[in-house]
Amino acid sequence: MPGNSFGRAFRYTSWGESHGPAIGCVVDGVPPKIPLAEADIQQWLDKRRPGQSRFTSQRREPDQVRILSGTFEGLTTGTPVSLLIENVDQRAKDYSEIKELYRPGHADFTYQAKYGIRDYRGGGRASARETAARVAAGAIARKVLGAGVSVRGAMVQMGAHAIARERWSWEATQENPFFCPDPETAAAWEAELDAVRKRGSSVGAIVEIVAEGVPAGLGEPVYDKLDADLAKAMMSINAVKAVEIGDGFAGAAQPGEAAHDEMRMKDGKPVFLTNRAGGTLGGISTGADVVVRFAVKPTSSLLIPQRSVNVRGEEVDVVTKGRHDPCVGMRAVPVGEAMMALVLADHLLRQRAQCGG
Amino acid sequence: MPGNSFGRAFRYTSWGESHGPAIGCVVDGVPPKIPLAEADIQQWLDKRRPGQSRFTSQRREPDQVRILSGTFEGLTTGTPVSLLIENVDQRAKDYSEIKELYRPGHADFTYQAKYGIRDYRGGGRASARETAARVAAGAIARKVLGAGVSVRGAMVQMGAHAIARERWSWEATQENPFFCPDPETAAAWEAELDAVRKRGSSVGAIVEIVAEGVPAGLGEPVYDKLDADLAKAMMSINAVKAVEIGDGFAGAAQPGEAAHDEMRMKDGKPVFLTNRAGGTLGGISTGADVVVRFAVKPTSSLLIPQRSVNVRGEEVDVVTKGRHDPCVGMRAVPVGEAMMALVLADHLLRQRAQCGG
Amino acid sequence: MPGNSFGRAFRYTSWGESHGPAIGCVVDGVPPKIPLAEADIQQWLDKRRPGQSRFTSQRREPDQVRILSGTFEGLTTGTPVSLLIENVDQRAKDYSEIKELYRPGHADFTYQAKYGIRDYRGGGRASARETAARVAAGAIARKVLGAGVSVRGAMVQMGAHAIARERWSWEATQENPFFCPDPETAAAWEAELDAVRKRGSSVGAIVEIVAEGVPAGLGEPVYDKLDADLAKAMMSINAVKAVEIGDGFAGAAQPGEAAHDEMRMKDGKPVFLTNRAGGTLGGISTGADVVVRFAVKPTSSLLIPQRSVNVRGEEVDVVTKGRHDPCVGMRAVPVGEAMMALVLADHLLRQRAQCGG
Amino acid sequence: MPGNSFGRAFRYTSWGESHGPAIGCVVDGVPPKIPLAEADIQQWLDKRRPGQSRFTSQRREPDQVRILSGTFEGLTTGTPVSLLIENVDQRAKDYSEIKELYRPGHADFTYQAKYGIRDYRGGGRASARETAARVAAGAIARKVLGAGVSVRGAMVQMGAHAIARERWSWEATQENPFFCPDPETAAAWEAELDAVRKRGSSVGAIVEIVAEGVPAGLGEPVYDKLDADLAKAMMSINAVKAVEIGDGFAGAAQPGEAAHDEMRMKDGKPVFLTNRAGGTLGGISTGADVVVRFAVKPTSSLLIPQRSVNVRGEEVDVVTKGRHDPCVGMRAVPVGEAMMALVLADHLLRQRAQCGG
Repeated sequence: MPGNSFGRAFRYTSWGESHGPAIGCVVDGVPPKIPLAEADIQQWLDKRRPGQSRFTSQRREPDQVRILSGTFEGLTTGTPVSLLIENVDQRAKDYSEIKELYRPGHADFTYQAKYGIRDYRGGGRASARETAARVAAGAIARKVLGAGVSVRGAMVQMGAHAIARERWSWEATQENPFFCPDPETAAAWEAELDAVRKRGSSVGAIVEIVAEGVPAGLGEPVYDKLDADLAKAMMSINAVKAVEIGDGFAGAAQPGEAAHDEMRMKDGKPVFLTNRAGGTLGGISTGADVVVRFAVKPTSSLLIPQRSVNVRGEEVDVVTKGRHDPCVGMRAVPVGEAMMALVLADHLLRQRAQCGG
Repeated sequence: MPGNSFGRAFRYTSWGESHGPAIGCVVDGVPPKIPLAEADIQQWLDKRRPGQSRFTSQRREPDQVRILSGTFEGLTTGTPVSLLIENVDQRAKDYSEIKELYRPGHADFTYQAKYGIRDYRGGGRASARETAARVAAGAIARKVLGAGVSVRGAMVQMGAHAIARERWSWEATQENPFFCPDPETAAAWEAELDAVRKRGSSVGAIVEIVAEGVPAGLGEPVYDKLDADLAKAMMSINAVKAVEIGDGFAGAAQPGEAAHDEMRMKDGKPVFLTNRAGGTLGGISTGADVVVRFAVKPTSSLLIPQRSVNVRGEEVDVVTKGRHDPCVGMRAVPVGEAMMALVLADHLLRQRAQCGG
Repeated sequence: MPGNSFGRAFRYTSWGESHGPAIGCVVDGVPPKIPLAEADIQQWLDKRRPGQSRFTSQRREPDQVRILSGTFEGLTTGTPVSLLIENVDQRAKDYSEIKELYRPGHADFTYQAKYGIRDYRGGGRASARETAARVAAGAIARKVLGAGVSVRGAMVQMGAHAIARERWSWEATQENPFFCPDPETAAAWEAELDAVRKRGSSVGAIVEIVAEGVPAGLGEPVYDKLDADLAKAMMSINAVKAVEIGDGFAGAAQPGEAAHDEMRMKDGKPVFLTNRAGGTLGGISTGADVVVRFAVKPTSSLLIPQRSVNVRGEEVDVVTKGRHDPCVGMRAVPVGEAMMALVLADHLLRQRAQCGG
Repeated sequence: MPGNSFGRAFRYTSWGESHGPAIGCVVDGVPPKIPLAEADIQQWLDKRRPGQSRFTSQRREPDQVRILSGTFEGLTTGTPVSLLIENVDQRAKDYSEIKELYRPGHADFTYQAKYGIRDYRGGGRASARETAARVAAGAIARKVLGAGVSVRGAMVQMGAHAIARERWSWEATQENPFFCPDPETAAAWEAELDAVRKRGSSVGAIVEIVAEGVPAGLGEPVYDKLDADLAKAMMSINAVKAVEIGDGFAGAAQPGEAAHDEMRMKDGKPVFLTNRAGGTLGGISTGADVVVRFAVKPTSSLLIPQRSVNVRGEEVDVVTKGRHDPCVGMRAVPVGEAMMALVLADHLLRQRAQCGG
């Protein structure tokens, strides 16, 4: 019933607040004898870490992960893997003034409504800092999936400006701060985001995650469909408000004969001629790439004043100074990759349980 | 690990195939002493039932529900409520020719890949017939939510044609076969769908579900957020490929200052001046209407030939005769309502567990 | 959170009251392509059925099971198997007088305290009739375990009179109404139970369940240990008040050097020289027989008057007429077997998920 | 599916190995606004800590707990409480010789069989050191139960020697190293255990846990009965092989008229005249004391040689030097108390979910 765990067979539980001593997670159900060192996890955390360009929060967190259990002589043992990341750069003073405010677009009001108490420092548990635990757990999920499955993400739209898909390059995603697969668009975004930042505003984004090499047969109908679990996984990321698989919303506007993937034989095997379904049919993976997109709303922390109320019922105007990302969407890319890996690893083990190898 | 249950505190398990003797579900965790009779459930099943207009499958199922347990003298007792709906109009012969085919857009190929066997009659477990169990369970969820919460749905786009939101009328949704809230658009859709049906094609749809009266505080961060569970719930419905909350994908294109809901005091209480968030912040309900939209892909069964392969690896062309809906989206409206009610009831009980009344 | 499901990977949900129209269960997670017909289940239900000797309730229930879903052409398909057993011989009038009573040793008082309402007819959901669902689900669990695993049970003590273990014969358990493995003791019990019945009393029992052929490695430390799940499984059976594994309570009185199982090599494999542990170490199966014993309290329904109170707070004397078993222990034998099979099947699939084949 | 979590509504996940850097747990579902400081937890850990008398392992662990999340300004916030206890006195060298041995009565063989790998240092995850996490989580469970519920434990039998129940004194349990409620017996045990220790043997024990003040109505029939969950909880403790509720095994030998608890009115309320049931009927708490007993097998580590085999299939004799408790039963007392508190807290929240306040 409590909500801080994710997955069923490959399951992790996340804990920690933005300004507490540390954050972390416990990953249970890890298959034994998988090589696992801190460096395997650190590489993905480094990708998510703030403070790496002028477009992300200047909070300086090394995000150094420690493995506290579950490995022995470099291998997983099948027991829970406990991961811990210390919070180093909390700067509690930055946040003292939000103690009594409900910031628009933030979770201040709802945490208070739910629990009757909230750790207001840096957003507490609702901070995007929690996503470091997702990325750490996701690194182990990648190990479970093995080298045959690749999970990669890209930012495909910033604000109202989408990439040109014909210029897609996975290599490009590693060469700009936006994980943008289209170098020309990335350059345009850079100028645009500088302007957004300067006027104290923010901007949303659309992120696409692609998993290649996923075997057919993953997903548990009818409620734990692969796409249903992916939708949940992505929608659980901070600031995400929409998720689609394959053609998604656009597919609804197509006539039936242009909305599905026809099949033919190739090298003795059935293949899909297109991938409008995004890699799932009936909630089960088809063997084609699993393709998910999600929308991240613009960062809620703004220098532009916003009308709100405080805990005493007084009307106030809110300006958030602190350290913030003008576009959190870019930092959601490694998080979305992690969630994809976590869902796939979970369903891989679940499939093995019921149907064997 | 198996995937045929939904919910945690208010939890139901669905069973049954399209052409088996019956379908049904077991609803566990129902609070005691709630008045519950078969008629309370039947009214919602009647809304979903096929064969009610020329636009839905002509399968003639009375969908008569029986309560087999969990009530006594008209009240729930707190023990599991078992619901059973007999399959009356199976007509197995209609489907005999699909035995060896993988129909494009259907789950034939993936069920075979997953289980190594499939009940091909009418789609077996992957048939939309399963959604009757959702609607039946959803009827009990409505009872748990009580009269203060209303859950209503509407079809807001058919194919490429959206409604005019300024003409929105909930009453209108009861007066056309599409659950369309805009009477003018409904008339246009009627003509359009006749044409679609005539040329053996099909069309997708976008459905919107709105819950009013939801108290603030529901949702379990950080993985079982209210919107995350709604995303999963809607994406688990047959043929759904996209889900969004509030402004959803469109919200990503707005500047930060136009993307969030400002607050003011009204009658001594904090209120949101807009509802761009769709009723959740940080994954917890705000007290505003919970607004979810989802896309339904065009029906996969077409009279227009589609290229495919069969179980023997031969290339074939597929034409699906049988009985089918040219737009399954309209039948997804009561199903989406049920899933909304189920998620809310579950989170109401979960909230009560951790935080009390 | 609701409590009517059992198991994690192989999971079933039970429903139904003693005097409702039917009882049943939904078994989810069944591996596909297992041959399964109603007769496979019926044979075990027949073993549990009341009315087969003068020592069991004369309620005449055919306990005819129907498979409503999850199989196709004689094989499981991987989708939920729904099982239904109609209640035929309810005789509601027999129970009308207990409507307002709290019968000592029964669940009347606690169901009322918990739910504020209860179906008093024949004990409602608390009736031992529910155990038919366990036996039916257990029959499928046996199929999952395969022919290599045998699960058998015996009654090893009735009241204060234990069997002589040196006379143990599995064949004998099929030849007397007590499932007693010691023919001499069975004869003595027969006379004793007639006397108990005549004076309107009842008697408890100890039941032993043995699983042979269980592979080493099943059980999920540290909370879902195989023995922990077995303890839960057995303690959940009506009227059970104690569970032990291997030497159990008696083992606590042994010196350390006589309390464990030494090992030697045999035919190139490690073997245990004794089985004091009852087949588990550290909560994981050792490959030796899994041996569990549980105590069943004497039937609560007595012709001898018992002091109690009624729902209006009046002091009353209770005499239960109706139809009852003077020793419910004997009917717990097939139920204990079923619970053992269910726990083992669940852990077999769970082991496969994490550790593969 | 993985097994390192316990509870459903009040749920914790434990991690850590005997000789890793630390152990700990994450407690999720904690109600908000409960005062909680490290000292609240430390007091119970101190009670369990080794090295406090000559009868327990001389491992010197301060067992200092740190709260890493979930509290703010001294109150719980409703977010996960992460607890961490560093391992200080690992002395890895003590255990180097068991690397290749399967010690009789230990989990060496089964962890290897299950996972194909094991952390052999000090028993790894199978070490009783894990129980510190249970005690820490149990301390929070006590807070959830509140002052109205008391949970206390006592050792009632050591080896073959039981206490005299007529001398029972809860105060006495605080005055001897055995948590023995009978001072005379405690004195006798002291001499006996010295002898056991001297000859390199060990001895088992029976522990009794009593919860007073438990409201009627807790427990979720039919599988998550209160007593079923207690049986699982206790059986999951290291070295436990038997569990009973109320009269337990002895109750099976009583005639029906002496096996149940009669009721009368007292001060306008129904009361039970005895407590043979141990506080549950039909798996639901009655309001009477919940009384559970469990058997702990003798410590497996002995100076007396035991026959075994090693990982290379060679027959060997095993003598365990290291640091060990001649009677682990006494250290199981605070652990049993913790498990009782954890089960009750979980069911308190579960009851609140379904049935309200």
